Amino acid sequence: MIKAAIFGASGYTGQELTRILSGHPHVKLVAVTSRRFTGQAVSEVFPALQGLTSLKYQNATPTEISNVCDIVFLALPHGVSMGIAPEFIKAGKIVVDLSADYRLRDIKIYEAWYGKHSSFKFVKDAVYGIPELYRAKIKKTKLVANPGCYPTGIILGLAPVLKKKLLDVSTIIADSASSVSGAGREPLVGSLFCEVDGGFKAYKVGKHRHLPEIEQELNTLAGKKFAITFTPHLLPVKRGILSTIYAKLKKDVSLGELHFLYSSFYADEKFVRICPQDVYPNISSVCGSNYCDIGLVVDLRTKRVIIMAAIDNLVKGAAGQAVQNMNIICGFEENTGLHTAPLYP
Amino acid sequence: MIKAAIFGASGYTGQELTRILSGHPHVKLVAVTSRRFTGQAVSEVFPALQGLTSLKYQNATPTEISNVCDIVFLALPHGVSMGIAPEFIKAGKIVVDLSADYRLRDIKIYEAWYGKHSSFKFVKDAVYGIPELYRAKIKKTKLVANPGCYPTGIILGLAPVLKKKLLDVSTIIADSASSVSGAGREPLVGSLFCEVDGGFKAYKVGKHRHLPEIEQELNTLAGKKFAITFTPHLLPVKRGILSTIYAKLKKDVSLGELHFLYSSFYADEKFVRICPQDVYPNISSVCGSNYCDIGLVVDLRTKRVIIMAAIDNLVKGAAGQAVQNMNIICGFEENTGLHTAPLYP
Amino acid sequence: MIKAAIFGASGYTGQELTRILSGHPHVKLVAVTSRRFTGQAVSEVFPALQGLTSLKYQNATPTEISNVCDIVFLALPHGVSMGIAPEFIKAGKIVVDLSADYRLRDIKIYEAWYGKHSSFKFVKDAVYGIPELYRAKIKKTKLVANPGCYPTGIILGLAPVLKKKLLDVSTIIADSASSVSGAGREPLVGSLFCEVDGGFKAYKVGKHRHLPEIEQELNTLAGKKFAITFTPHLLPVKRGILSTIYAKLKKDVSLGELHFLYSSFYADEKFVRICPQDVYPNISSVCGSNYCDIGLVVDLRTKRVIIMAAIDNLVKGAAGQAVQNMNIICGFEENTGLHTAPLYP
Amino acid sequence: MIKAAIFGASGYTGQELTRILSGHPHVKLVAVTSRRFTGQAVSEVFPALQGLTSLKYQNATPTEISNVCDIVFLALPHGVSMGIAPEFIKAGKIVVDLSADYRLRDIKIYEAWYGKHSSFKFVKDAVYGIPELYRAKIKKTKLVANPGCYPTGIILGLAPVLKKKLLDVSTIIADSASSVSGAGREPLVGSLFCEVDGGFKAYKVGKHRHLPEIEQELNTLAGKKFAITFTPHLLPVKRGILSTIYAKLKKDVSLGELHFLYSSFYADEKFVRICPQDVYPNISSVCGSNYCDIGLVVDLRTKRVIIMAAIDNLVKGAAGQAVQNMNIICGFEENTGLHTAPLYP
Repeated sequence: MIKAAIFGASGYTGQELTRILSGHPHVKLVAVTSRRFTGQAVSEVFPALQGLTSLKYQNATPTEISNVCDIVFLALPHGVSMGIAPEFIKAGKIVVDLSADYRLRDIKIYEAWYGKHSSFKFVKDAVYGIPELYRAKIKKTKLVANPGCYPTGIILGLAPVLKKKLLDVSTIIADSASSVSGAGREPLVGSLFCEVDGGFKAYKVGKHRHLPEIEQELNTLAGKKFAITFTPHLLPVKRGILSTIYAKLKKDVSLGELHFLYSSFYADEKFVRICPQDVYPNISSVCGSNYCDIGLVVDLRTKRVIIMAAIDNLVKGAAGQAVQNMNIICGFEENTGLHTAPLYP
Repeated sequence: MIKAAIFGASGYTGQELTRILSGHPHVKLVAVTSRRFTGQAVSEVFPALQGLTSLKYQNATPTEISNVCDIVFLALPHGVSMGIAPEFIKAGKIVVDLSADYRLRDIKIYEAWYGKHSSFKFVKDAVYGIPELYRAKIKKTKLVANPGCYPTGIILGLAPVLKKKLLDVSTIIADSASSVSGAGREPLVGSLFCEVDGGFKAYKVGKHRHLPEIEQELNTLAGKKFAITFTPHLLPVKRGILSTIYAKLKKDVSLGELHFLYSSFYADEKFVRICPQDVYPNISSVCGSNYCDIGLVVDLRTKRVIIMAAIDNLVKGAAGQAVQNMNIICGFEENTGLHTAPLYP
Repeated sequence: MIKAAIFGASGYTGQELTRILSGHPHVKLVAVTSRRFTGQAVSEVFPALQGLTSLKYQNATPTEISNVCDIVFLALPHGVSMGIAPEFIKAGKIVVDLSADYRLRDIKIYEAWYGKHSSFKFVKDAVYGIPELYRAKIKKTKLVANPGCYPTGIILGLAPVLKKKLLDVSTIIADSASSVSGAGREPLVGSLFCEVDGGFKAYKVGKHRHLPEIEQELNTLAGKKFAITFTPHLLPVKRGILSTIYAKLKKDVSLGELHFLYSSFYADEKFVRICPQDVYPNISSVCGSNYCDIGLVVDLRTKRVIIMAAIDNLVKGAAGQAVQNMNIICGFEENTGLHTAPLYP
Repeated sequence: MIKAAIFGASGYTGQELTRILSGHPHVKLVAVTSRRFTGQAVSEVFPALQGLTSLKYQNATPTEISNVCDIVFLALPHGVSMGIAPEFIKAGKIVVDLSADYRLRDIKIYEAWYGKHSSFKFVKDAVYGIPELYRAKIKKTKLVANPGCYPTGIILGLAPVLKKKLLDVSTIIADSASSVSGAGREPLVGSLFCEVDGGFKAYKVGKHRHLPEIEQELNTLAGKKFAITFTPHLLPVKRGILSTIYAKLKKDVSLGELHFLYSSFYADEKFVRICPQDVYPNISSVCGSNYCDIGLVVDLRTKRVIIMAAIDNLVKGAAGQAVQNMNIICGFEENTGLHTAPLYP
């Protein structure tokens, strides 16, 4: 039984971590923090969790939390994690950081997109937490930079073809659509029901902060530098991201070959499902689960491959992947506590 | 490990049973039937279940299924179950029937609302499957009449005050709102996205087939005969039923007393949660789970009690309760396989 | 061409007024105010209105606005209108106040539910603006207390049976469900997409501020004092309110008689539609329009009448009714500018 | 006053035409046909239209309808129109065909995608009905091939840059997302609320029947042959299509230049709105209206242009554009009957 804490637990990601960890057989959730809801029971803020946890939100210092836990999940905004994590790192605790603060390995890029970094020196110890690609490294680290939601689907979707060098990488376009929970639980006009329901629109086109993270990882996989076009859209749904990814093939590849490549690449993975040919992933088929569903099309007329990747942004795109990383580090079965089947319909 | 089968497994209730039983540690799901999808894999019809079950839908006879299972769940339309169940009953199998066919104990009432009954003689052996009220009987039966979705919430919501004889029973009104999954997966115009989304309306006012079932059970609890008004509405959501129930109090009862009554009545129940005072249940706080959340208000100005009960109609209102009943009969922990926390948001 | 202004125009009601008045053939919209969006174009805040108005939000005083308009619509919060209206009243302008500030005729009741009133003396000159009931008085007033959204549907739904004295008024229950736009455009956690979508719950049970307004008007119609039970619910839709109203009949009335009563009562009304027998109103069938659709059921088993009334809360429940009142006062055809057919699907 | 009829009026497009034409000041809607609903009042099938039309659906022959109307709208499935239109054409009536039957000018392409054509000879007289591009021709025709919903937005979005020859046309990708009403009112499992709500997925990738139509028109605009990649997705909304279109620029073009190009190109158009720089179109901002909103981005890092076009698929993508075409042919103001402002929220 390891003791876990969540720092910044009252947002949607923190709530999802609370939900998953409350049902994890090898974890005892010992503390959850929230400045806004200090003193309130988790179940008061999230009645869905009544009976599942009796914890109250604390306004505790990193030191106080560090003293009581073996592992901490930081579900904090970018720029805040960097000030909280060092305390835990120094105390030898396992840190799974769900912010962007330890993801970018080039400080210039980090600071261009996010602003000043106060503890960049720890980035070199951080492992980018996509288990399907970096399991061996994750096993040995104590600091996981848990990936962003958009990057997770796009990277898993492109990894096999990039490693196999099948693409003209200058032609990659990722057209993504995210649920509203990706914007968090802050009360913003743009996240109101009446602003979102019945709507669909792009936002931050070519300017979203996940872009440098996506490019860093895709470049690493391909072994060369290139830029992509990334267009996020806002969907009127609560959970899920679908990325539809386009690229020119450098040579003829049949759908059968592509399908075989992906099925082989992810053959041993519990959380990646390759859709049968002519089936395309639907975000509602992964809802609530840690799956990433991948669908494949070869457009012979234009020699493009079209890769579709669907995840639940709160699970595989955040809290679920964080727990998956924890399981690896702690030596648990990788899917412990992550058995929830997708909730359909 | 008991062997279970689902007869009529390709509707939403059958799918939900498949989902739950696939993750149940003491159950091996051995067969699922569907005439429409015979020969197709479950995961072809419901991609959400890819990797969770490799079963294919069969078009098998009751005898064929009976030969391979210990327990059968009948997720069939009313009027069809009655022709399928006898085979299993005679073979000594456990039958959990999710249709209305064995719920009504008065054949005149059954036939007035549903039409001819071909195997009514088994009704006397059936137990109405609300574990919170009839656990002892369920433990000893081999035929469970699994309750309807609307009845489940309304009965659990009214049981404590009816047993305590606090209400003027002639004043009971149940105003309910159900998700669209309650209408099943039949392709009907009225269930189309464009007909439902953005809408809200009553239907079958005073004429819904769940009415006689509700009255039978409420009359049993109160120990006398009376009629109620029941108005179902259709909500633009996928899962959930909220019933708002009104009745005059026969004497002054404070909210505190009422709250104590309910908390005591359901003190040992894992799946009934009494909301704190001034908190009202929300269907999205039970979504995907087997909980029934109950909220209470005393309207002093009009001497009415207002009781609100929320369930997920596919879980506590159908498949979850069916599995709960199976657990009781089989001697498993009552919440085995039913641990899924509500999926919020 | 009359000159109109909207005070507090950047909420959903103000936006809806802007939309309707921009297309009104006899009105020139001359000014819109908003403190939050001062200096911004309306079409910047509401891109839907690009090309329909070139106005910018001003942070103007009542005097400044009064100087340029013939009629002002106050789309302000309760408690704010009372400080703004007097300036316009004294200047002899027509005032249509969409807040609650001039609706309640008993200052004790107003102050018990809303707090101090600074200009209560004007209430005696105000007319409660339901044209179908008070058209003659509206024609002669310069101060309209535009009704609340819940009250509009409930009052129109009950008026015929109350005037005809068919009900046991002690048994009236109004169970209502409202869209999220009823909560306004304030960024509140409770109005976020993720909090509302997929959910349904009651709120402020027996405590909603529209209760005294509903009771005042129902008592007036019935000619006696009585209390009702009123339960509002929050629907995951953008527009619309459905009220399902229950009451015991004092004597036997057939559905045919009831239908005839309602059809006669509203025979000359352009904006009230009585649904055919066995058809129940749906909020999506009035969406975007100024209609109130009313459906009727007689529950013979319990001697109750069930009346369902559907409106678009932003139109007949606010901005549309306000324009309807303006049309009456100004001598325009009552449906001028209000021709928009319901947008279905 | 011209006399109009709708053939196939009980689908969503037919209903939308009914709604618009019922409010058109120069049109008398004289007949609506439907085989499924023969004899039923329009308002029985669509209660939203109660009071707006008293027509009943007829099961009439083309000759019968032709005898009573000046113009007919064919809201029929592909393959059916071709058998109905000739009767009207021969009788000299104006025909606005909303199917694909007269859109494709190459019979080989038509038959490859849709099957046999029984009246292809009329295609040479048909004008592709995008008024913003072909107004002069439309004015002189009696047979309008009303464009598909996806093509309308994509063509309007690309016309200015294609005519100006700014793009490397081999790089064009249209990533589109459509509402469910685009699938019509047929009761299909895939259009059920529970299958769609909370979901998002691609369908018919590279295989959608609108592809040849889009390519025909884009090739015409560019003056050369090329293929594009087109990926439709299904959105959980009732109305609206957003197309996000990608292409490489052949030379450097600033956002300001691009914005100026579009604003000039569509300067006199009432129904095309170019969004201000850094504003992107939202389908909910055109809902219910005949607008096409276009947003522009230049991605300097990749030298791509990103064009976003939003329409209401039932209005500008079908019924509204059909009425716009009728207005042109009949010499009415082009926006007559099409004044409905977008319904937001």
